[in-house]
Amino acid sequence: MRRAKPIILGIAGDSGSGKTTLAQGIIQILGPEIVTNICIDDYHKYSRAQRKETNLSALHPDCNYLDILQSHITELRRGGAILKPVYDHQRGDFALPEYVLPGSFIIVEGLLGFYNKKLREIFDLKVFLDPEDFLRKTWKVQRDISQRGYSSEEAENTVYRRAEMSARYIAPQREHADIVLNFYRPGELPQETGSKLNAKMILRPTVRHPDFSELVEENPGSEENCLSFTLGRDSGTPVDLLHIQGNIRQNTMESTAKIILDNLPEAGPTSIAGTGRYLEGKTQKTSYPLALTQLLISFYLHKLKLNR
Amino acid sequence: MRRAKPIILGIAGDSGSGKTTLAQGIIQILGPEIVTNICIDDYHKYSRAQRKETNLSALHPDCNYLDILQSHITELRRGGAILKPVYDHQRGDFALPEYVLPGSFIIVEGLLGFYNKKLREIFDLKVFLDPEDFLRKTWKVQRDISQRGYSSEEAENTVYRRAEMSARYIAPQREHADIVLNFYRPGELPQETGSKLNAKMILRPTVRHPDFSELVEENPGSEENCLSFTLGRDSGTPVDLLHIQGNIRQNTMESTAKIILDNLPEAGPTSIAGTGRYLEGKTQKTSYPLALTQLLISFYLHKLKLNR
Repeated sequence: MRRAKPIILGIAGDSGSGKTTLAQGIIQILGPEIVTNICIDDYHKYSRAQRKETNLSALHPDCNYLDILQSHITELRRGGAILKPVYDHQRGDFALPEYVLPGSFIIVEGLLGFYNKKLREIFDLKVFLDPEDFLRKTWKVQRDISQRGYSSEEAENTVYRRAEMSARYIAPQREHADIVLNFYRPGELPQETGSKLNAKMILRPTVRHPDFSELVEENPGSEENCLSFTLGRDSGTPVDLLHIQGNIRQNTMESTAKIILDNLPEAGPTSIAGTGRYLEGKTQKTSYPLALTQLLISFYLHKLKLNR
Repeated sequence: MRRAKPIILGIAGDSGSGKTTLAQGIIQILGPEIVTNICIDDYHKYSRAQRKETNLSALHPDCNYLDILQSHITELRRGGAILKPVYDHQRGDFALPEYVLPGSFIIVEGLLGFYNKKLREIFDLKVFLDPEDFLRKTWKVQRDISQRGYSSEEAENTVYRRAEMSARYIAPQREHADIVLNFYRPGELPQETGSKLNAKMILRPTVRHPDFSELVEENPGSEENCLSFTLGRDSGTPVDLLHIQGNIRQNTMESTAKIILDNLPEAGPTSIAGTGRYLEGKTQKTSYPLALTQLLISFYLHKLKLNR
């Protein structure tokens, strides 16, 4: 049985940049039952042990079945099913494949999603995660230790060993994104790595961006306004910047979210329950700026669906 | 990297009808390095234990990912790679998937290859194996015991339990084949199950059949001639029948094979080494009629490639 053509979101970014965390909240908003989530790590060619033996990095494009990934997303876009390979991060090895059908939305997240032209052409919206390097390294080490069974030393080493590969293969994908998402520490909180971070979305003219002015204007000039627009430059080119303040209060976040939700199509999401969640080690925490980012990207996806 | 569009042979038939045995010799003739062999059993949904629990049969179309199979063959036909699932018959369970690229020829063999229209449309040539029921049951029980770890009782039971399913799902595929291949016992050898069996190929007008008359006429009227043509009826419809005698001598088989090989394109196969092999229990034996059958089907495939 074939279904309607799904909307496909690509999330790329370096290891530890928050791809899965971002995706999880978007899935919650859109509705887990209508979202298919594909993690590109499942398309690794080699197990952790094999990579160690041969001194290959999972970051290298040749260490991933990007051709199979492309053909799988194409099949899902067409409405067909796939047998998705499965990589188990805990064991660093493969498990049996899973039968996967396309939902109304497909989220594809991973290191190399925008690596080649054929992959880039598949996505309806491309988001690149580009947090401050300090944050990404902290997040990655925390995650590798608490969730992937690495020792502290192994985790630190991985960051170090990957730097060159990352510069060569991951960073160049940034320029192909429609939206670059940057989390950064507010000047007054140099040690912050969690819920109080500011977020900035760079909006490139490669997709039609929804009219956010409505959202901001309905809450005009108030100190309570946690979203703001400015013009800025990115690699020399003028861009729109959407700023989300890190020190939002819950009330403000909720009233802003309500305005966004009210602007969504009728059949769309009605609640932000389950958004903004992230893990600090093994502890689950909540970030309001993250929640708003997830809501805004979901807003994009619903607008894309509406305008198809 | 994309390659030239391959020629795709489908082989269908009941469990134990000789699909793999037939395919192996064809692969030898065409050249293993340019053939991709897909066994549909790899697309089972459930392990043997799961099937036992739920009392489902691997013969049931719903117990196989026929949608994935179709999308995989389509991708191979396009020149792309697939991650093929793997079912291990010895263990009756799945193994990790394999990365598979298309060769110049693709052979897809299994129980349900012609089950639905979309599958049938993929093949350039469709062969249905329809040996005498007595032979098929004998072959199946032998195979299940010696190669798949069944007890004698289990193997006999399987044949019995499968009869209804087989009539419902396997047998109806016969009518969709371009060639029906029938091995049968000569009247004077009622106990024969191996190398002395006669073979008969029913040639339906659904594909353009090569001009076999050349092959036969070059060896006219001689007692040594082991191939002959007659007209016949199949389910009431007139058809061409190609008969291969079971009691061929090696010399005759080799001279007939030489005529066929000489009629093949220059870049084609030049030897029948490795053909006609089959297993009786764990012992490898050779059948000349089987070898000629494999050569004739390879002849078809090369003619199809030439005329593409």
